[in-house]
Amino acid sequence: MTAEKAIKRYLRWLPATEWLATYQRRDALSDGVAAVIVAIMLIPQGLAYALLAGLPPQTGLYASILPLVVYAFFGTSRTLSVGPMAVMSLMTAAAVSRIATQGTAEYLTAAMMLAFMSGMVLVVLGVLRLGWIVNLLSRPVISGFVSASGVLIAASQLKYLLGVPMHGGNLSEMLASLTPHLADFNWPTLCIGAGTTLFLFWARKGLKPLLRKIGLKPLPADLLTKAAPVLAVIVTTLIVAGLHLTHAGVAVVGEIPKGLPALAMPVGKPEWWHELLLPAALIGLISFISSISVAQALAAKRRERLNANHELFGLGAANLASAFSGGFPITGGFSRSVVNFEAGAVTPMAGVFTAGGIALAALFLTPLMYYLPKATLAATIIVAVLPLIDIGEMRKIWRYSRSDFAAMAATIAVVLAVGVESGVVAGVAASILLFLWRTSTPHVAIIGQVPGTEHFRNVLRHQVNCSRAVLSVRVDESLYFANARNLEDQLYDAVLLRPTVKHVVIMCSAINQIDASALDSLESLNRRLQDAGVKLHLSEVKGPVMDHLRDSDLLSQLSGQVYLSHYEAIKDLDPDCLATPDHH
Amino acid sequence: MTAEKAIKRYLRWLPATEWLATYQRRDALSDGVAAVIVAIMLIPQGLAYALLAGLPPQTGLYASILPLVVYAFFGTSRTLSVGPMAVMSLMTAAAVSRIATQGTAEYLTAAMMLAFMSGMVLVVLGVLRLGWIVNLLSRPVISGFVSASGVLIAASQLKYLLGVPMHGGNLSEMLASLTPHLADFNWPTLCIGAGTTLFLFWARKGLKPLLRKIGLKPLPADLLTKAAPVLAVIVTTLIVAGLHLTHAGVAVVGEIPKGLPALAMPVGKPEWWHELLLPAALIGLISFISSISVAQALAAKRRERLNANHELFGLGAANLASAFSGGFPITGGFSRSVVNFEAGAVTPMAGVFTAGGIALAALFLTPLMYYLPKATLAATIIVAVLPLIDIGEMRKIWRYSRSDFAAMAATIAVVLAVGVESGVVAGVAASILLFLWRTSTPHVAIIGQVPGTEHFRNVLRHQVNCSRAVLSVRVDESLYFANARNLEDQLYDAVLLRPTVKHVVIMCSAINQIDASALDSLESLNRRLQDAGVKLHLSEVKGPVMDHLRDSDLLSQLSGQVYLSHYEAIKDLDPDCLATPDHH
Repeated sequence: MTAEKAIKRYLRWLPATEWLATYQRRDALSDGVAAVIVAIMLIPQGLAYALLAGLPPQTGLYASILPLVVYAFFGTSRTLSVGPMAVMSLMTAAAVSRIATQGTAEYLTAAMMLAFMSGMVLVVLGVLRLGWIVNLLSRPVISGFVSASGVLIAASQLKYLLGVPMHGGNLSEMLASLTPHLADFNWPTLCIGAGTTLFLFWARKGLKPLLRKIGLKPLPADLLTKAAPVLAVIVTTLIVAGLHLTHAGVAVVGEIPKGLPALAMPVGKPEWWHELLLPAALIGLISFISSISVAQALAAKRRERLNANHELFGLGAANLASAFSGGFPITGGFSRSVVNFEAGAVTPMAGVFTAGGIALAALFLTPLMYYLPKATLAATIIVAVLPLIDIGEMRKIWRYSRSDFAAMAATIAVVLAVGVESGVVAGVAASILLFLWRTSTPHVAIIGQVPGTEHFRNVLRHQVNCSRAVLSVRVDESLYFANARNLEDQLYDAVLLRPTVKHVVIMCSAINQIDASALDSLESLNRRLQDAGVKLHLSEVKGPVMDHLRDSDLLSQLSGQVYLSHYEAIKDLDPDCLATPDHH
Repeated sequence: MTAEKAIKRYLRWLPATEWLATYQRRDALSDGVAAVIVAIMLIPQGLAYALLAGLPPQTGLYASILPLVVYAFFGTSRTLSVGPMAVMSLMTAAAVSRIATQGTAEYLTAAMMLAFMSGMVLVVLGVLRLGWIVNLLSRPVISGFVSASGVLIAASQLKYLLGVPMHGGNLSEMLASLTPHLADFNWPTLCIGAGTTLFLFWARKGLKPLLRKIGLKPLPADLLTKAAPVLAVIVTTLIVAGLHLTHAGVAVVGEIPKGLPALAMPVGKPEWWHELLLPAALIGLISFISSISVAQALAAKRRERLNANHELFGLGAANLASAFSGGFPITGGFSRSVVNFEAGAVTPMAGVFTAGGIALAALFLTPLMYYLPKATLAATIIVAVLPLIDIGEMRKIWRYSRSDFAAMAATIAVVLAVGVESGVVAGVAASILLFLWRTSTPHVAIIGQVPGTEHFRNVLRHQVNCSRAVLSVRVDESLYFANARNLEDQLYDAVLLRPTVKHVVIMCSAINQIDASALDSLESLNRRLQDAGVKLHLSEVKGPVMDHLRDSDLLSQLSGQVYLSHYEAIKDLDPDCLATPDHH
């Protein structure tokens, strides 16, 4: 490899080199407009998701500055907008609450360390090109996980809507801790919370048509609709400040330190490395999955392509940046990326500009947020997560496959009853076990000759010639450990039921792979049939499979032979049973 | 279902009803002869495996009485001989040592409880027909596990051969605890131990030819060879007793309580249920696997068949019997079952007779075993387990498949470095992950028309006609969560590389299944291609897959169409690219 090639190869990990060289003033204008809109959207989101993660509000802003800059240079998506997200924040709260107390400096350090570790997980997976590991999370598991997380998140915000204490990592803990305080709810808080919630729900459906009616074009109407939470924030802050509702018990965000985060490596207790490993890995994988699916959908609209391993690296780098700058785990968000895209962002520079806007907010606007009620943030969270509870998807999976539905149901049940991490683990285990169970019975068809041809077909579906002495079977799946023993037993039993059989010929045309367990089962079947006085033959073994079998003892031990075609096998073993073929 | 049918159905769980009705005096004679030989073999084995499990010697006899009787009635194999076995004893020691101290009554109770729980696991799996679960243990994992267990077992016996203390559940613990005492070894013990080991090794190879030379027929020569351990036991016991070697520090079995075990349900501490669950499940599964493979091999020699679920039930019942009668976990043994078979056992009644013989030994012969040196038992264990270390199998798996070898190597490494249970768990995880990784890249071939036919073949292997506007691909595997995303990306990237492409047609003739994750990927691919201005079509979808897809939204969302044949698709989408076919 020449030096130039090597450099090119490494530069692929820095996708910004592709667009920076041709960056023009026109691009900067488009990106700038999009950045202003996204930044305005992101400020209340950042504050809200920090609250959900149990962290001070400024961390939500910090997590939306440096990570965006880093992602702009290392991410592969042109328009993905990263930052704090609801599900990641819930998972952060679940993991960090176990090892530290909310409100302490330790809790903050642990959250930063969690971001560091999930970033490292993603970077390592990317560099080692292990992106396929996310496939372990099947669609029903992710979907069930996200729906159940939506329920947990919405439930966790009840305390801010009602102004009462509540805690817990699963539904029953939350409701049990809430119930004794239900009667103590705070009237003004509830009014603000419920009012904001209703307004935001209405804004989702009713604001856009209204704006269109008063003459706005579709795009500005859409963007203004998405800025409804900002409006709610401004209005409720003014109400609380104007009516002095803090005296009436309305909890507000309070003083937020002005300025930008200090850069530092988060250093926690040594045992945290061990305790945060599983949560960090799960957060990393889930943030990658939600991020890449958004990025892919947007890339397709401009006929661009993404590299999954480079994207792992980019998202990991953004999480590391969050860890070093006082933030917590982040990911690419769907709604804000769509806004970014629709507002006309053309390059990742839009992310850098967005980060600049949020940095300005952190520097100058935080005093204005003093009277922002927590109930308003809770309402924005609830309205944002309720669509995550996707009953339609559940119904769709139920209709399509009971087995997939079982994996989803297991995930949902465990997330709600035990917690987020156990839920993901249970879901992955369930979907793997269900898959192995579904494939543990390979489809074996007994076949016979289609009269007058060299073709062999399933005896149950076609009028075919069968030999009394030769049992012909076709196996329709690759053979591996989960189905090997079943195949062995199916074939052995089929022979025992037919006392006239002296030969078994397995047609292997659909077998793409035979692993060591299946090889062992074939050897054992060969011995068992031999002991029962029956010879085992193979036909139409695929080239790569045959190459593999040559490295084994099966071919030398085989009581019968390997035939190139099934027809040849029958012609050799029981020519009388064949109808004269046409040889067309 | 009539009452008669219901009774018949339940009687299937009691296979003894099949042979008891026609049992004759002639059968009893054959079974009796085999029973005497097996009982003589089983006595030293029982004592030795009790020693290995860390239990008093009589428990080895107890585990060879009632379980044999129960298996005779509930087991499905005609000639399988059950009882204590090396690997199960090692696993018992590993599990029970963690919760109780060797030599205490608690330790014994815990071992009995372990037998109870693994018996229950087997019975439940059998009744619920969940036998397929043993498929999770792939051949390389079992093979690696057994080999590594052989090493651990042989190493654990060094203390008896040398007469020094030693403990630990993995290789490094054992060797670390042994090293400081190495110089303190006991000379007479080492002589007896090493002498017996050498004699038994020689007997394996040299005794049979010698007996044949002095005129014995093959069968008696073979059986006498297998009785060599009994000879070693008798001779070394006499030497120790005659030379008063106990005074020289030779450890002996000592006083064994005379009589038969009391029947009782083992009741341990409540927390043991939790602590023994994983070991009990693993012991159950591994005992079933070794048992059924022996049983199947023997059944084939008489063209009999076994029912795996009934066999689970039978082996489980035998383990329950062991638990209730002072024993520990048992399984079907290879060498003793072969002896039983070759000595002429015709029905499971041979097992009942064997149990009778061992009961007589427990009643009358135990005083004769007082001076039996533990070093002799250790020697019989070492000679019995060294063949378990199967280097040939390792080499074979290495040659056949690197991925299978990796699963085996992981199992061996973890068993030796950490312990038996962790080893099995690591092996299962490794083989599942490797399988998912291997299948995560589905084989996708770009295909073209074989000129003059309606057939389509891989463009890389055949001279075919290709369209510039239509990309034809054939997917050679069922689509599920582990490969769905990869397929989506492969196809999307293939389209991006070909700017002239306006249609993609997936030929689905080799797709047997599409799970919910794969459905989601197809839907997403459809959307992504649509956004990129390309239509997605399917052809030759199999009947069952099509039935499934009708329950989904894919067909209504599909930007293209579903064609019955691939030829039809191309004829519709780009007729000009087709060479005129023959229509033969």
